[in-house]
Order: sequence, then structure tokens, then C-alpha cells
Amino acid sequence: MPNIPHLDRLVRALKRLPGVGPRQAERFAAYFLRASRGEVEEFMAALSEMKAAVVLCPQCFAYSENGLCEICRDTDRNTSQICVVEDPQDIEAIEKTRAYKGLYHVLHGAISPMDGRGAEQVKVRELLSRVQQATTPIKEIILATDPDSEGETTALYLADLLRGQVEQITRIGYGVPLGGDIDYMDEMTLGYSLKGRTKI
Amino acid sequence: MPNIPHLDRLVRALKRLPGVGPRQAERFAAYFLRASRGEVEEFMAALSEMKAAVVLCPQCFAYSENGLCEICRDTDRNTSQICVVEDPQDIEAIEKTRAYKGLYHVLHGAISPMDGRGAEQVKVRELLSRVQQATTPIKEIILATDPDSEGETTALYLADLLRGQVEQITRIGYGVPLGGDIDYMDEMTLGYSLKGRTKI
Repeated sequence: MPNIPHLDRLVRALKRLPGVGPRQAERFAAYFLRASRGEVEEFMAALSEMKAAVVLCPQCFAYSENGLCEICRDTDRNTSQICVVEDPQDIEAIEKTRAYKGLYHVLHGAISPMDGRGAEQVKVRELLSRVQQATTPIKEIILATDPDSEGETTALYLADLLRGQVEQITRIGYGVPLGGDIDYMDEMTLGYSLKGRTKI
Repeated sequence: MPNIPHLDRLVRALKRLPGVGPRQAERFAAYFLRASRGEVEEFMAALSEMKAAVVLCPQCFAYSENGLCEICRDTDRNTSQICVVEDPQDIEAIEKTRAYKGLYHVLHGAISPMDGRGAEQVKVRELLSRVQQATTPIKEIILATDPDSEGETTALYLADLLRGQVEQITRIGYGVPLGGDIDYMDEMTLGYSLKGRTKI
């Protein structure tokens, strides 16, 4: 829109949202312009309170509202299994399968040498010390990183790193199509891939 | 994500953005979670300052930062022509053509009886009184509403309403878009483009 600096600034901020281009950012800005003052205030309150309240679980690095997350606190979970995922959203997808009752570990990304992202940029060191300091020994680590090249690289790197530290290291395998994204997988496929996990 | 009320509330607010589903809203929420405190603050400042600063131009109802918009204030524009559009974003698209030097009138929507949106819900009354009270008489009204059923209904309604009030009422031409492929064109468009053929 011609020369409305305040609008341009909001459009620039909206363009930083993942997958949002200039056209969609303008539509979002137009929505906020049309929205009532109350709606915009609710949006800003939701954003700022979320930012203040939501933290990372100090054990598994999933989202949490205070201290340990719900899953880490749950005494009914099998604490000898850790399922390693790239993103917090992946946990929800796996929980929906009801095929897994252990704990999680969120890496917050994958190792990607091409993008200059090494093991230090993701929560790998935290996983290693968690395994080494566990009060109940970890029997199995399930590597549930995405079935794409970064996810595979990360799984192989973690398998090497953790070998000898735990009884079993497994990789989800059955049914996940290569090039896919854990987050978008249907429950059936993901359930099969958990049941059919193989040793690496 | 399992039971993080603050996150759920933000996801609900993000789902109100036009065209955003639950999955994309979750991705946006995850972006805000990962974003630095400063980035989120800049976003909120951009939103709240835009909301406070940007108003509708009292003459043409385009966005403006104070009083008349830039185009209405521009003394080089032809004030005897008004191009009627549905949305403020349409102005930018038309300006980019450099084919028009008159003024605009933004309806903020189209008449759509199916959705219960009549002439009172869009800026039709304002257009009529603008035409009637113009200091330099309006010679031409160009109806540039969208070429869909609501846009057509609106154009026909406005043409009836304004007949006799201005010298000319025109509708943007229909035809095959440049760079298009005759083979892939729908019959309606191709039919219009044949009816609207010009001598070369």
C-alpha cells in the first residue's frame, strides 16, 4: 500500500512468520486493520502472556508452563525409554498414535552441516548428560528425527554418540516415507513406524 | 501440544487470521515461542502502533496516516475520475499499472446478498454523496470491483445507482490475461475477450 509507514512496518514483521510471503503478510495486516480494538488487544495479550508463561521443560525441552512438562512429571510413563524428536510439535503427533508410553527429548532442530548447524546448536549435549545422569537407567533411545537428510544425519550421529551408553538404540522406520515431515504424518503411518522400529 | 493453555490461546487467536488453519497457526505460535523477546516486542509495537496510527481516508476510505490519504491530497491527480475498488490493496495493484491518474473509492467489500451483505455494509452511500457534493464535477466512474459474482452484482448495482449523476460509468475490460494460454482459459473469459475484441 502506498506510503503508510506504520502499515509497512507491520507487514515486514508479519513476513517473518514461517512460510508467509508479501501478499499473505498484507492480508494479515488488513485483517488487523479491520479487526476491533478488543480483538487486537486479545491477540497481543495472548502473545505476550504466552511469551512470559511458556518455558522449555528443563529435562526434555518440550514446552511447559512451569518446571517439568506434563509428560516428564507423569509417573505412569516408562522412564527407561527416551524418544528423540526434532520439534516440540512432533510430540503431539507421536502421542496421538498411543503407541508410545516413554519419555521424550526435543532437539530443537536437526544437525545440518550444509546450513552450518552442528551438534552444539541442538540439544545433543543435554541428551548425553541426561542419559549419563539418569536415576533409572535408560534402556532404549528411539530416534524419531524427521526422515529427511538432516534427520537421518542427526540419527546416525546420535547412534554413534550413544552407542554403549544404553541397551538399545532404535530408529523409527516402518512406513515413514522418505522426504516427509514427522509433524504432518497420519497417525496410522506413524503408529506402524513406531511398532516397526529397527536397531541401528 | 499437550495442555499448554497459554499456547492454545495464542493458536486460537492466530487461527482468526484469514486463510490460516490449525496447522499453520501452530507453526506461527512455534515461531513466536522461538523468537527472541526483542523480536516479539517489535512485532507487538508494530501492531499496536499501526492500530493507533492508521485510519481510513475520510474521502476515499483507503488507508491513511492522518486525514486525507496521499492520493486524495495529490494535486496532480485527475479529480474528475473515480475508480471504485473493493479493497485498499486493489489500489496498489492499479497504481502499479501507471495507467490511471484519477482518484479512488474503496467500498471495503462487495455486495453479496447470499452472505447477507447489502449496500449498507459497504461504502456505497459515501460514494453517492461524494459524487453529489464534488466541487469539481465527476466525469467518469470506473467500476473496478472483482470479476466474480459479488463484484459483478456490485458493479451493476452501482451503475444503476449512479446513472445520470456522472457523464460516464465504465467497467474494467474483461479478456485474456497477458501471458495466459488460450487453451487453458475458461469459456466465460474467452467469450468476453472475443466480444471485447479491438481493431489493430
